[in-house]
Amino acid sequence: MTKYKVILDLDTGIDDAMALAYSLTLPNCDLIGVLSSYGNVVSDLSANNSLKLLDLLHHPEVPVYKGAEHALNQPNFTVLPVSAHIHGTNGVGEVTLPETDRTVAATSAVDFIIAAAHQYQDRLIVIPTGPLTNLAQAFQKDPQISHLIGKVVFMGGALTVPGNVSPAAEANIAQDPEAANIVLRGGFNITMVGLDVTLRTVLTKKETAHWRSLGTTAGQLYADIVDYYIDVYGETSPHLHGCALHDPLAVGIAADPSLAQTIALDMKVDLTDAFRGRTIGNEERLKEPTTTAVCVNVDVDRFTTTFMAHMNELLQESGE
Amino acid sequence: MTKYKVILDLDTGIDDAMALAYSLTLPNCDLIGVLSSYGNVVSDLSANNSLKLLDLLHHPEVPVYKGAEHALNQPNFTVLPVSAHIHGTNGVGEVTLPETDRTVAATSAVDFIIAAAHQYQDRLIVIPTGPLTNLAQAFQKDPQISHLIGKVVFMGGALTVPGNVSPAAEANIAQDPEAANIVLRGGFNITMVGLDVTLRTVLTKKETAHWRSLGTTAGQLYADIVDYYIDVYGETSPHLHGCALHDPLAVGIAADPSLAQTIALDMKVDLTDAFRGRTIGNEERLKEPTTTAVCVNVDVDRFTTTFMAHMNELLQESGE
Repeated sequence: MTKYKVILDLDTGIDDAMALAYSLTLPNCDLIGVLSSYGNVVSDLSANNSLKLLDLLHHPEVPVYKGAEHALNQPNFTVLPVSAHIHGTNGVGEVTLPETDRTVAATSAVDFIIAAAHQYQDRLIVIPTGPLTNLAQAFQKDPQISHLIGKVVFMGGALTVPGNVSPAAEANIAQDPEAANIVLRGGFNITMVGLDVTLRTVLTKKETAHWRSLGTTAGQLYADIVDYYIDVYGETSPHLHGCALHDPLAVGIAADPSLAQTIALDMKVDLTDAFRGRTIGNEERLKEPTTTAVCVNVDVDRFTTTFMAHMNELLQESGE
Repeated sequence: MTKYKVILDLDTGIDDAMALAYSLTLPNCDLIGVLSSYGNVVSDLSANNSLKLLDLLHHPEVPVYKGAEHALNQPNFTVLPVSAHIHGTNGVGEVTLPETDRTVAATSAVDFIIAAAHQYQDRLIVIPTGPLTNLAQAFQKDPQISHLIGKVVFMGGALTVPGNVSPAAEANIAQDPEAANIVLRGGFNITMVGLDVTLRTVLTKKETAHWRSLGTTAGQLYADIVDYYIDVYGETSPHLHGCALHDPLAVGIAADPSLAQTIALDMKVDLTDAFRGRTIGNEERLKEPTTTAVCVNVDVDRFTTTFMAHMNELLQESGE
């Protein structure tokens, strides 16, 4: 089996932490790098969280690359109170992770994307689970990459359901609508894993209790981190009866597209007024061929079963 | 073959006129009545246009029932300037239709829906191509009908593309968002044929020229009516290179659901502010079973080929 080469682009937050762990378990994927982004936390903290989690999961060989600190058209970035509430001020539910002695790579996130696109081409999958700023900047620096990268599978957007930071906008797109618009119109082979599907895949404390029962440090810490997230969801989205597996689902669909029902749709992002940040079909290109797919349904049982089996194994092994 | 019993609910307009004609050609459908609604024209003119068109097409046996004159929460209705521009002030492109000596039935549109629902049940298809006011009123008077009617296939809404009267709202839904919300949440077996698909099916003057060449009065008049519509589309939506077959597509998909790719999605209508009139998935019911389907793609070639073949035959025969 020729493995995919995978780059994760995370604003490492709680579901990002689960996505990171899950990506290490997939037999057809080889995680070659993790980029930092801003969103759930600031970019430096995202990088630091990713380094610590990779160490915790016994994968210190995976490099972390420093990425964007703010949106394309903004001078800086401050974590929104709602983000700090959902992920904790440290991004991992106020849980203290073991320190790391590793630091970010010398190469920037943008340059790493470009180099990997040229080196691996069709075999490369880029999975952004935060704002699309890093990918937009890489595309602006080297537009060839949109045709080189095998596929981009991003968590973000909402097509068939309302947004979660406004009736129009999902949080990752809302952070940098201009970057998302550049990426969605850039000709990438791209799959949107939005709220349309991620709100269907839910994790409960029954599952985290199992992680805790494994008796490993990683199992204990991941259970503590995710329980924090489940508690917040209990306040903000009680109808879900758990937390949504937003970012892990993007990883799952990247590795196994058969998990999702998709529609082919050329997409754009609204940039103004009440609709700012809305991901919507480009009504002037409905009859054109497109390389953009939007997930509209997902095999919930198969995803959650696979996710749990792999996570249990990883969190068990990391204690050995 | 057991034929479906079909009720059309029209604000007879130009594409309504095509939908009416097309519904008369379908071998598995028996048109048992046409309801009037307001929208493209006022309700009285809608009824009168439908009567004249049925006579022109040699189907004077089909009764026309007078329906709503305005939205549920509005005291009255005035045709929007944009509607008069698109359909002409008389609804049929300023073309003069032969007079009719028929009048509307004594029964109201609402009572006719209710009676037909009880009489035909699973065999009944209701096809609204204007506001959903008549159907909402029938449901309010007799909630049983949502479980009796075989299916509702309506032209309206926009899920994966922007609206056409605001970035959120499609015209039919915008006329009466409250009625649409009642119908979409009413438990009907319902299929939305929105701008997502209707903007893909386009008619040009090549096709209307063929109707004109048939040498029949109906062929001549339908060509004149639709050319008016195509000219307006040339101004307002030049990228389409023709006029959209909005209402006829709802009839086509009602008779042959295999024409469309659909997604199962519980729907609601936004009622406030900039989002008023938006048809969107109900994010709190994503994991529930639903009887609502939304068309997201359509077999354009098969639909337009079938539509043209049937229309040619009808417009030819109506001269014999």
